[in-house]
Amino acid sequence: MEQRAIRGMEAMPPGQPAPPAQPELFADLYELRMARAYHELGMRDEAVFSLFVRRLPPARNYLLACGVEDLLDILGALRFGPESVDYLRSLGEFPEAFLAWLAGFRFSGAIRAVPEGTPVFAEEPLLEVVAPIAEAQMIETLAMNVIGVQTLLASKAARVVAAAAGRPVVDFGSRRAQGMDAAVAGARAFHIAGVAATSNLLAGARYGIPVAGTMAHSFVQAFDSEAEAFRAFARLYPETILLVDTYDTAEGVRRVVALARELGDAFRIRGVRLDSGDLLAVSRETRAILDAAGLQRVQVFASGGLDEAKITGLLDAGAPIDAFGVGTEMSVSGDAPALDLAYKLTCYAGVGRTKLSAGKRILPGSKQVFRCTENGVAVGDTIARSDERLPGTPLLRPVMQAGGRRLLPRPSPAEARRLAEAARMALPARLRALHPADPPYPVAISDALAAEEREVRARAASMLP
Amino acid sequence: MEQRAIRGMEAMPPGQPAPPAQPELFADLYELRMARAYHELGMRDEAVFSLFVRRLPPARNYLLACGVEDLLDILGALRFGPESVDYLRSLGEFPEAFLAWLAGFRFSGAIRAVPEGTPVFAEEPLLEVVAPIAEAQMIETLAMNVIGVQTLLASKAARVVAAAAGRPVVDFGSRRAQGMDAAVAGARAFHIAGVAATSNLLAGARYGIPVAGTMAHSFVQAFDSEAEAFRAFARLYPETILLVDTYDTAEGVRRVVALARELGDAFRIRGVRLDSGDLLAVSRETRAILDAAGLQRVQVFASGGLDEAKITGLLDAGAPIDAFGVGTEMSVSGDAPALDLAYKLTCYAGVGRTKLSAGKRILPGSKQVFRCTENGVAVGDTIARSDERLPGTPLLRPVMQAGGRRLLPRPSPAEARRLAEAARMALPARLRALHPADPPYPVAISDALAAEEREVRARAASMLP
Repeated sequence: MEQRAIRGMEAMPPGQPAPPAQPELFADLYELRMARAYHELGMRDEAVFSLFVRRLPPARNYLLACGVEDLLDILGALRFGPESVDYLRSLGEFPEAFLAWLAGFRFSGAIRAVPEGTPVFAEEPLLEVVAPIAEAQMIETLAMNVIGVQTLLASKAARVVAAAAGRPVVDFGSRRAQGMDAAVAGARAFHIAGVAATSNLLAGARYGIPVAGTMAHSFVQAFDSEAEAFRAFARLYPETILLVDTYDTAEGVRRVVALARELGDAFRIRGVRLDSGDLLAVSRETRAILDAAGLQRVQVFASGGLDEAKITGLLDAGAPIDAFGVGTEMSVSGDAPALDLAYKLTCYAGVGRTKLSAGKRILPGSKQVFRCTENGVAVGDTIARSDERLPGTPLLRPVMQAGGRRLLPRPSPAEARRLAEAARMALPARLRALHPADPPYPVAISDALAAEEREVRARAASMLP
Repeated sequence: MEQRAIRGMEAMPPGQPAPPAQPELFADLYELRMARAYHELGMRDEAVFSLFVRRLPPARNYLLACGVEDLLDILGALRFGPESVDYLRSLGEFPEAFLAWLAGFRFSGAIRAVPEGTPVFAEEPLLEVVAPIAEAQMIETLAMNVIGVQTLLASKAARVVAAAAGRPVVDFGSRRAQGMDAAVAGARAFHIAGVAATSNLLAGARYGIPVAGTMAHSFVQAFDSEAEAFRAFARLYPETILLVDTYDTAEGVRRVVALARELGDAFRIRGVRLDSGDLLAVSRETRAILDAAGLQRVQVFASGGLDEAKITGLLDAGAPIDAFGVGTEMSVSGDAPALDLAYKLTCYAGVGRTKLSAGKRILPGSKQVFRCTENGVAVGDTIARSDERLPGTPLLRPVMQAGGRRLLPRPSPAEARRLAEAARMALPARLRALHPADPPYPVAISDALAAEEREVRARAASMLP
């Protein structure tokens, strides 16, 4: 199915992302408590915090970093308005001096991040924040949530897109997404990961990504006959996709054939949608009925409980399906609904920091990731100190500096999508496959970083008796 | 741990929920396409849509209905502003007459819903919308998303709360939730399900639910020694909970003991938090060190990858833990991250409607659910026609009528929480257990509804050749 075959695919001019009301309060209480402590104790030195995923979910060979542009928009506009200050005052534990500091707060930190759409691996920083420690601490929950959900959903969608093997995938998941934000930001992440369009109008308006849609069973039900419903919808939307499984799928397809005979040259229906039953059998029967009627150009669009495994199964079995609508499983990343994402202090006042808690490694200091390629294929990464210059492409780039000013223009979702596609295509084929890569992608720690880690851990351990 | 033991537990005056910008565009394109078709075809008759869950996830004995109050707030304020109309115009498929209708749109429908915090079962309507078909259709995605995520998360939290067996549970999940909306609305749902407090300040401000928090590893790391970090934090927050596992848990606890000796009567630390390692072993060691030092009143707070199964395991093994911080698994409903939620046309123009798609039953018409109790214990539900009067308590109540006016005052989360607790306590014990209830809760279909279903299905089938 060519892209034009999905109605509404025309790219829209990018809208202006609208952060939620009061994102400054999207913080955990303990972050403000610690910020107040730093403020009052005069601890104003610079801290480095690294955002990374400790371990990939078992069913992911890589993650697709996503969400940093939305985070930068929110941070650049972060203010504590009177309503937020009043709320914090009402908690009865923050002194007026700290509240006054909050009222004048502007995020002044620097941020380095990998470009959206970059494949990343366990322990690699997606982003590093360098800021006075109170500021860097205060944005912990915000940064983790915004980047976490988009990275989670983009990573899942990349698998669905890979399974569809070039056929368009449309995001139908807004109704089942975990909240409106997940649906809208998720639609953006899906698009960057290669999904062709979303059903969600707010995502279309906010991010300028293509929207698409067909019709619901309720429309067919509301008419006295399916034929009448098809005729009415086709009159208003001549190039639509008709949903044919409300009562009996084969009968529904035959009604589309009848409509084609009735309309003659005016028949421009682009496809039929199948949303239930055994999609392999039903798509074959549908294709056969359409072909027998000379309607080879009417495409078959499948939806209903799909994920990458089901799509692979259908296509491997030769199901004549031209495009997929995917909802629930993609919209909640059903097989891996959370990432083991961490935002950790790695340096304060110029001194590398770590912790020694069991199973929770923190690579100290400010870092860089170098990706090496051979003949255009990524062959391995090295996590290094940020002051090292190693072979390969450095992935983390400065994106924000003091005062919250962006250093690079915001890429459109379409641009991030192109970058993501190129970066995914540069991964070894075994990484893009849906089963666990064997061997996994090699990620090394540079000698200098390893030495720093030993030194910082030894210092931490020396505090023990 | 008594509730006062969690700092910031004091209830806040309820804030005013702030719906996201442009919720009117939180719709799937096909809904607006169908609405335009209904508008243009003159189909203005009343439709009934039922919102229900087709099947419970295998690991749920019941769901806790949640989210309707937020939905009512959004629907009451739903308007298509110029920006939204302009976006829809830019899609190039909506005539000006329809756009003008949208510009004047006010939701005029009636809604019946079960009170928030009500346990519900498969196929039982959580909510029914009665409105001109275009209006009822347009709010499909909005209604499903808002009620879906809160019902999903409340249902998960009810299990975590049950596992904690009276010990407070604090929501630490905002960083890992699927988006900001899921975190904030989720905190509300958790509270209704019995969670004591949330770490999320925006949820506290927006919904007036209690907030709580301790300290992070980063705070300890930022100091040259753990003892110094504890001393500084305790000076600012004398009744705080100290995080003791940054370097070595037993050593961390001994530093709390040392601080108690140092401060004497001024020592008012309420607890220590354990966030890593084998929580059973570590909590026992911690309790023993504290008790040996005469610090019986210092409580043990556990967090780190917890869910209802791990909490049950810990408590069954006698872990001396007084309260739990629960994040990821609760915040994404990890074992069941989506509900099989449906919003289906069941009546149009006074005629019951259904579809015949495989495995997707729709009970026709406007319905009511009657819950029968014996000695205060729920013994079975009957899904009936809404015009029936059967034994038991009818669960669906009118909550909104023409013009979007609320019929009942908005209950505070605290009120919904009380109702939810009473309703959960009225469930048979086997339903409240974490393993699958055997037998499951009985839900019957009334004779009249069954007869209507047969009649409507026969009519639908008669459309087939």
